[in-house]
Amino acid sequence: MSYDSQLRTSRRILMGPGPSDVHPRVLQAMATPLIGHLDPEFVTIMDEIKEMAQLTFQTRNNLTFVVSAPGSAGMETCLINLLEPGDEAVICINGVFGGRMADIAERAGAKVTKIEAEWGQPIDPQQIKDTLKGLKPKLVAIVHAETSTGVLQPLKEISKIVHDAGALFVVDAVTSYCGTDLKIDEWGIDAVYSGTQKCLSAAPGLSPVSFSEDAVKALDARKTKVQSWFLDLNMVKNYWQGAKRAYHHTAPVSAMFGLREAYRLVLEEGLENRFKRHQQNHLLLKKELEPLGFEFVVKEGYRLPMLNAVKLPEGIDDAAVRWQLLNEFNIEVGGGLGKFAGKIWRIGLMGESSNPNFVNTLVGALKTIIK
Amino acid sequence: MSYDSQLRTSRRILMGPGPSDVHPRVLQAMATPLIGHLDPEFVTIMDEIKEMAQLTFQTRNNLTFVVSAPGSAGMETCLINLLEPGDEAVICINGVFGGRMADIAERAGAKVTKIEAEWGQPIDPQQIKDTLKGLKPKLVAIVHAETSTGVLQPLKEISKIVHDAGALFVVDAVTSYCGTDLKIDEWGIDAVYSGTQKCLSAAPGLSPVSFSEDAVKALDARKTKVQSWFLDLNMVKNYWQGAKRAYHHTAPVSAMFGLREAYRLVLEEGLENRFKRHQQNHLLLKKELEPLGFEFVVKEGYRLPMLNAVKLPEGIDDAAVRWQLLNEFNIEVGGGLGKFAGKIWRIGLMGESSNPNFVNTLVGALKTIIK
Repeated sequence: MSYDSQLRTSRRILMGPGPSDVHPRVLQAMATPLIGHLDPEFVTIMDEIKEMAQLTFQTRNNLTFVVSAPGSAGMETCLINLLEPGDEAVICINGVFGGRMADIAERAGAKVTKIEAEWGQPIDPQQIKDTLKGLKPKLVAIVHAETSTGVLQPLKEISKIVHDAGALFVVDAVTSYCGTDLKIDEWGIDAVYSGTQKCLSAAPGLSPVSFSEDAVKALDARKTKVQSWFLDLNMVKNYWQGAKRAYHHTAPVSAMFGLREAYRLVLEEGLENRFKRHQQNHLLLKKELEPLGFEFVVKEGYRLPMLNAVKLPEGIDDAAVRWQLLNEFNIEVGGGLGKFAGKIWRIGLMGESSNPNFVNTLVGALKTIIK
Repeated sequence: MSYDSQLRTSRRILMGPGPSDVHPRVLQAMATPLIGHLDPEFVTIMDEIKEMAQLTFQTRNNLTFVVSAPGSAGMETCLINLLEPGDEAVICINGVFGGRMADIAERAGAKVTKIEAEWGQPIDPQQIKDTLKGLKPKLVAIVHAETSTGVLQPLKEISKIVHDAGALFVVDAVTSYCGTDLKIDEWGIDAVYSGTQKCLSAAPGLSPVSFSEDAVKALDARKTKVQSWFLDLNMVKNYWQGAKRAYHHTAPVSAMFGLREAYRLVLEEGLENRFKRHQQNHLLLKKELEPLGFEFVVKEGYRLPMLNAVKLPEGIDDAAVRWQLLNEFNIEVGGGLGKFAGKIWRIGLMGESSNPNFVNTLVGALKTIIK
C-alpha cells in the first residue's frame, strides 16, 4: 500500500489561491518538539502571536487572536458570535465567499439581505447606501479580497455608510491580509477574519481574527448562547487572554510555532515593503501575461495583487494546460470556482510566492506549452 | 520584544493529558514543503490517511475522515450533525467531557437527558437501561476514556442496551484511541471522534472521526440544515470522498503530513503491541508511584493505562511541586480539572510518551523533590 513508504511529495511551485510557498524558517519552527498548550512558555507564545496579529491587522483591539481552525472557521466565528436568531444582516456577494457568508448567517438564524454584484465587479457603495435606507441591520459583511474573482473591494467609504446606519462592519480579509493595506482601526472594521496560508505564508489551518470594542459590546449583549461550543468567543477569549488562562480546547501547538515565525518574517520585511512587493510582482505578471493573450477579469484599480484572475486565451484548454503545468513543470495555478470554472485561472502571488522568479518560471513554462 | 528572537522552547518531557511526545519522523514530516490541498498528490495522502484511520478505528465505515480542527470540534461534528432541534439525546456524564457533550447537544436544540455518575466512577450499564425505558432518544453518548478522571468505560454491554432502545451510539475516544482497544464495528459504535495529540502522538489540531451506515442514514434523513457550515458533513464528506473532490475549506496540509507519519508509526508497531505497551507502562508507573503515597482515583479494572489519575499524598502542594517538576526537571504532568483541581494529578503515558524511561525519569524527579 502507498502508505508503506514515507512521505514523497513533489517540489511544487505554489501559485494557486493558497497554500502559498512557506519560508524554510516556518517549516523548521513547525518541526520543533512540542510543549504543552498550557505550558507558561506556550502562553507567552500565544501572547506574542496576539501582539503580532495586532500589528499586522494595524489594530489595538484587545480581542485579537487566532482561531484553531482554517479561515472558514474564522468566518463562522465572526458571524455566529455577532448574530443571534432574528437579527438582520446585510451580506455583500460578488463571488463564492460572499455567498458563503450569507449561508453561515442564515444558519445562525439571521434575516439576511443580500447585495449582489456581477462576479468580477466590486460592490458599489451607493448600492449599500440605498439598501440600508429601509433596514436596521446588526451588521454588514463584505469580502475585501474575493478569492474566487480577484476583486479588491475598497472599504473606507463603505465603512462610513455602514456605521452611519448603526451597523457593525464585518470584513473577510482571508486573501488580502499581509499582502495589501488593511487598517482595521483606521477604517473602522468591527470584525475581521483571515487565513494563514495566503499572504502570511504559514501553513493552512489557522484563522487570525480581531474584534472592535463595539463588536465586543455586541458579544456581551447576547441573549442566547452561541450555536457552536468550539467557536463560542465567551469561552475562547478566556483561553487567549487574562491572568489565568482557562482551558477550552488544545491549541494546535506546532501550527502556532510556524505562525509565530511567519509573523516574524512579515514584521522583519515591514508591512509597507510587503505590500509594495506584492504590487510589483503583480505588475510584472501583468506585463508578461497580457502579450500571451491572458486578459484580467477585473478592471484596473480593483485588481488584487496577490490573486490574479485571468481569462484564458482562445484555444487554451483549462484542465489540460494546468495538468501540464503541474506535472511537467511542478507549477500549481488555481482554476476557476463556481461560474468561473473552466473559464479563468487564479494565479496566486501571495507571501513567499510573490517574487519575480516565480513569475518568470510560470511565464517561461507557459510559453513552452502554448508554442 | 520577545518575538524579536527565533522560537526558544525548553525540551519538555510531556506527561500531561496531551499533547504527548511526538516522534522525530512526525516532526520531520510536518516540515515538508507544502503542496496544494487539491493537488492530486494531496488527495492521495487524504485517501491514505482515511485508510489508516479505518484500520486504527478497526472499522470499515466509509465515512471515516479527519476533521480539520481539534478534538472538541470532532465532538461537535458528531453531535450537531446527528441531532436536530427537538431530538432527544441521552448523555452520560462522569467528568468534564461528558458535560461538554451535553452542552453541545443542548446548543444543537436537543432535549438532553443526563445520566450521571460520581467523578472517578464508570457509568453503570443498568442505569442506562433504566433511563432508556421511558425514552426514545436519537442517540446515547458516552466517553470511552474520561481524561478528567482517568476512567476507562466498558462499551460492549452499553452498546447493546443503546441499540435495543433503537438509538445511535456515540463515543468520545479522544484519549483511548490508539492506546487501548477500540473496535468501532465489533462494538457497534455509530459515531466516534478522537484527537491526534494523545495516543496517536501527532500534533494537536485534528480530529479523526467515523460514522456507521446507520449514522449516515440519520445524516441523510435530516430535515434541517446543520447549524455549522464549517462542520456540516454534507459538504465535508464531498471534500474527503468521491471521484471529484469538492472544495470546502483548505485542509491543514502540514498537520496532515505529520498525521500520516504518526499513523504509519502506529501501524508499524501494530495495534495489539501498542495497547500492550500502554498497559505495561501503566503498571510500571503504578508500581513506582504507590510506594511514594500516590493513590489511584479509579478502582482497578477501570483505570486508563494512558492517563493515570492519582490523588496527591498528604503534604504535597499541587502547584508548587508541578512548578518544580516543570522548571527544574522539564517534566509536565497534568493538574486536576473542575472539582478535581488541586487534588489530583493526571499523568499521561500516551503514544510516544508511554515508555519506561519517562516513568523512571518522573519517579526519580519526584523522589528528589519529595525527600
